[in-house]
Amino acid sequence: MKRLLVIGIGAGDPDHLTLQAVKAIAATDVFFIVDKGEVKHDLIRLRLDMIAEHGREPYRIAETRDPERDRTTPAYTAAVEDWRSRRSQALESLIAEHLGEGETGAVLVWGDPGVYDSTLAIVEEILERGRVGFDYEVIPGISSIAALTARHRIPLTQVAHPLHLTTGRRLAESGPTADDTVVMLDAHCSFAGLSDFHIYWGAYLGTPQEILISGPVSEVTEQIRQTRAKARAENGWIMDTYLLRRSSESGG
Amino acid sequence: MKRLLVIGIGAGDPDHLTLQAVKAIAATDVFFIVDKGEVKHDLIRLRLDMIAEHGREPYRIAETRDPERDRTTPAYTAAVEDWRSRRSQALESLIAEHLGEGETGAVLVWGDPGVYDSTLAIVEEILERGRVGFDYEVIPGISSIAALTARHRIPLTQVAHPLHLTTGRRLAESGPTADDTVVMLDAHCSFAGLSDFHIYWGAYLGTPQEILISGPVSEVTEQIRQTRAKARAENGWIMDTYLLRRSSESGG
Repeated sequence: MKRLLVIGIGAGDPDHLTLQAVKAIAATDVFFIVDKGEVKHDLIRLRLDMIAEHGREPYRIAETRDPERDRTTPAYTAAVEDWRSRRSQALESLIAEHLGEGETGAVLVWGDPGVYDSTLAIVEEILERGRVGFDYEVIPGISSIAALTARHRIPLTQVAHPLHLTTGRRLAESGPTADDTVVMLDAHCSFAGLSDFHIYWGAYLGTPQEILISGPVSEVTEQIRQTRAKARAENGWIMDTYLLRRSSESGG
Repeated sequence: MKRLLVIGIGAGDPDHLTLQAVKAIAATDVFFIVDKGEVKHDLIRLRLDMIAEHGREPYRIAETRDPERDRTTPAYTAAVEDWRSRRSQALESLIAEHLGEGETGAVLVWGDPGVYDSTLAIVEEILERGRVGFDYEVIPGISSIAALTARHRIPLTQVAHPLHLTTGRRLAESGPTADDTVVMLDAHCSFAGLSDFHIYWGAYLGTPQEILISGPVSEVTEQIRQTRAKARAENGWIMDTYLLRRSSESGG
């Protein structure tokens, strides 16, 4: 039987790797990398560094170019699904070509494989097509949410309060739907104007470029906007996330 | 200066420990354990095993008995806050008595310190009282949510869908408020009757006693109820969590 490991590698700090992930990397014969092209170069290097440190020779790396996602269409979900489908074909070809009988392959996923990541859906799509067969396991990772709250030293959840996790796109449409809301994938600072909220923002969490800003939304919106634009221009990419928490009456 | 580390140690599997947590345990002079009494004995032993494996001699363990929470009152939040306050006094006394100048203390927290855990609020309360002073850091951990979805090999979030995280108490009051809802701290199987949903349930995640059940709520409610009651009686305690996902029209 062939085996595929989907390994969560944490939010950016190599020390976010769990012992389980370290062992999984050491057990891997072939690492599959679906490259996102020139941008996010730092992230690919971080991943290769982890493989170099924890991989056990002889291992192989099988790489392909990530198909471009159509970012011009307003049909977001359809565009993501189309991109995902082409991505699953790219990974399927890699597996068919490079994963031998009795071997273990691995895909290294930023953060936790469950949190707004397409790899698991892609793997299911490949198995449904049935052109290649394998067993697979998922290794959980430190998500950028866990990294964000740890670095700000705040609880994610408050006693008996729900937490909502959403995207920038939905926040822009509906506003916050709970006292505590984590927002991911927000390129447009959709929190601006939410004057009842405190924001805990973080970018490049766990990496040497990490930036943390927190405060009442009304006071730090401009600071975050400018910091974000500058960092994005300097690094060529940005990954950021934030928690919105409704301010207590005391202004906290 | 004194330093306190709040270390997330994962959902139950010793290999959930991150390299960052391993290093933090190795850097600790004194481990603080606020014991929950006789129940959850397995959990305390697991924690002591981790300290024995990754602690660097000479280290010390300072232990105290957790004050009982009043479970008879209907005023849940008030009871939790009172219990938290007495718990913070217990930890404060331990720190005052056992943490020397220039030393590093640590509290080991199951899962991720941000997710429905009181340690961070307790630490803030201690610092606000100002009787003892220290700097502190938070080390993120694999939450039971990440462990749950990894073991079921499902994504936590779906493209462009929000995720709600809530408690059994609130689910019983309000029902599911999103297509995807993670429920924690549910002793009463409050999902029963939610016939539009698929449930992914897990108990003792990451431990040798781990149990996983999934299926349409209408088909697996009794199985979960009976399995849960039996396991709880056998082990003397249970920690479980689940994801409710609205079934697609195709019945998935």
